[in-house]
Amino acid sequence: MSARCRVAILGFGTVGAAVARRLTAASGAPSNIHLTHIFDRRASEKRASLTADPSTDSGSARAGSHADAIVWTSCIHEILHGDADVIVEAIGGAEPAAAWIRAALLAGKSVVTANKQVMARHGSTLLTLASRQGRQLRFEAAVGGAMPIVRAIGEGLAGDRITRLTAILNGTTNAVLSQIESTGCTIDEAVRDARARGYAEADPSADLDGDDASAKLAILCALAFGLRVDPAQIDTRSSAAISAADFARARQRRATIRQIAYADYDHAARALTAWVAPIEVDQSSIFAAATGPQNAAVITGAHSGDIGIFGAGAGGGATAVAVIGDIAAIARDKAALVPAPILDSQFFILNSVPEAVC
Amino acid sequence: MSARCRVAILGFGTVGAAVARRLTAASGAPSNIHLTHIFDRRASEKRASLTADPSTDSGSARAGSHADAIVWTSCIHEILHGDADVIVEAIGGAEPAAAWIRAALLAGKSVVTANKQVMARHGSTLLTLASRQGRQLRFEAAVGGAMPIVRAIGEGLAGDRITRLTAILNGTTNAVLSQIESTGCTIDEAVRDARARGYAEADPSADLDGDDASAKLAILCALAFGLRVDPAQIDTRSSAAISAADFARARQRRATIRQIAYADYDHAARALTAWVAPIEVDQSSIFAAATGPQNAAVITGAHSGDIGIFGAGAGGGATAVAVIGDIAAIARDKAALVPAPILDSQFFILNSVPEAVC
Repeated sequence: MSARCRVAILGFGTVGAAVARRLTAASGAPSNIHLTHIFDRRASEKRASLTADPSTDSGSARAGSHADAIVWTSCIHEILHGDADVIVEAIGGAEPAAAWIRAALLAGKSVVTANKQVMARHGSTLLTLASRQGRQLRFEAAVGGAMPIVRAIGEGLAGDRITRLTAILNGTTNAVLSQIESTGCTIDEAVRDARARGYAEADPSADLDGDDASAKLAILCALAFGLRVDPAQIDTRSSAAISAADFARARQRRATIRQIAYADYDHAARALTAWVAPIEVDQSSIFAAATGPQNAAVITGAHSGDIGIFGAGAGGGATAVAVIGDIAAIARDKAALVPAPILDSQFFILNSVPEAVC
Repeated sequence: MSARCRVAILGFGTVGAAVARRLTAASGAPSNIHLTHIFDRRASEKRASLTADPSTDSGSARAGSHADAIVWTSCIHEILHGDADVIVEAIGGAEPAAAWIRAALLAGKSVVTANKQVMARHGSTLLTLASRQGRQLRFEAAVGGAMPIVRAIGEGLAGDRITRLTAILNGTTNAVLSQIESTGCTIDEAVRDARARGYAEADPSADLDGDDASAKLAILCALAFGLRVDPAQIDTRSSAAISAADFARARQRRATIRQIAYADYDHAARALTAWVAPIEVDQSSIFAAATGPQNAAVITGAHSGDIGIFGAGAGGGATAVAVIGDIAAIARDKAALVPAPILDSQFFILNSVPEAVC
């Protein structure tokens, strides 16, 4: 049905490696999507791991065939001037990722990114560039892991006027908080546990402090309300000082504690309320039910009421599902028209974190 | 951004009227979507209700302007041979809806439908026709009301291999069962209550018996597993005999009762298990949390694990959100390529309803 789609991956970290393994798996890999190039600064030392790692749930790579034909490079120009149709940006961080996405679009390629920092800060500009180039920039993986919230808001609820978002957007913090909740351990112990399970990086401060969630919330404010929100405008409280005693107090009120990202927009008054903070949530809520690295969201629309969605918010496998779904959408229709967003900067921002635990 | 998109609605019942009111509302109506024609067998008597009904949450229609310019007709040929780009099929039932969708596609129009019976029985054929015609047939509203499950499965989780679906797909039955649960009333009283609230039609037997849910489950089996499932193949048990005593027994096991639609596919063995039945679900599950006319679903993927989604499953407003989202997608990219589904008929079907209450 669809023509062959050539894919290059930038960055062979957790997400890049998971995508590469899925695309080269012996079974279940999409037949029309071909991984042709992998860029990594340490290409030569990482190359072996694609075929050697037997721990993946996708089984080992197609023996001797597809994976061996992949070109590994530590030279970004080889990718940008190569013949890939789609570039998967899985480097993370603000730069050089944003510059390379821009360069890829200018070179006539479509881009799939998992990068919330880039999309929160430069999403509108890059989406406009993609539209002008007649190419696509897709970013389902930047928010929510395997939970398809970008599509739910951007397309599924396009027929509604969204008024409020309430969400757990950081899987690492959720794993840490729900571990304190279930074991009564200290936050340091919970962070160590999350690291051991692969849910936290060496330095999880961007997760616990709310910077990761506020970048994702800024992306969702653009999609849901059409607003240009700088993540720095979002009132963000850290979860780094939460203790078992806080959970004990919450429990007495039939509540528990989660890092919640919240935004509501009063369309008539042009007033946005947006914050990220550890707050008490009811024990019967879907936020309390989200444990480990799960994400969850309730999207409130003027006509549809509350729509809920939840799923694995962290981990290479879950994020790879979102990336591969985006590649498949591009492969299906390379000439699809994706209008550039028109974001409004004329709004008031009200910050009022209710009942933040810290 | 997008060119003007002309829309005709077939059928001015609950869904058709809700879509018409949204598209002609004084505020919030998509500016590039223009409702030009409404077909209804009783066009002349229904016409007054579009402008007269003040009870809609969308506010009254644009005074004197847009709504007055709409052509009402009881002649289907006027629609099929008219200049609409998109036809919204909101008649319901198998025929003549299927024939008219076919005729609309043959006339070069795209179609948005809320019709689960047509999509369950003829979806594959009609989608193939749409693809050949270079037009689109979209059907988010056929399953799950405002809950965007068709997009979640068909696009958001396209990067995964889905193995299992567990869902509440019938809002009427859920409203009836959760009313018995909360009040201890009889099923007849609960049905009367659901009718009074607008959640049940005069004859809710297709809802309670599971026929509505099995049609929707067949649609989801096509999307999720690529299987051609006849709704009649799905083992379906009625919820019509559920009583307060059944709920009391379930409560003793910390459970409650919901009409669940279930399908799992063993890709290796090519064995599909599929059923619709009233079963006990844990009180802490998202299915127990779904009350009134809500729908809920857990989609299990090989790589993403469990993804959950829930929302309003019935009511004109919720369904209109799904319809208008589909119209907006067509308006954005009229030339979008939508590949025809390739459905597999070579599988075994295993019916084994576990612990059905009746």
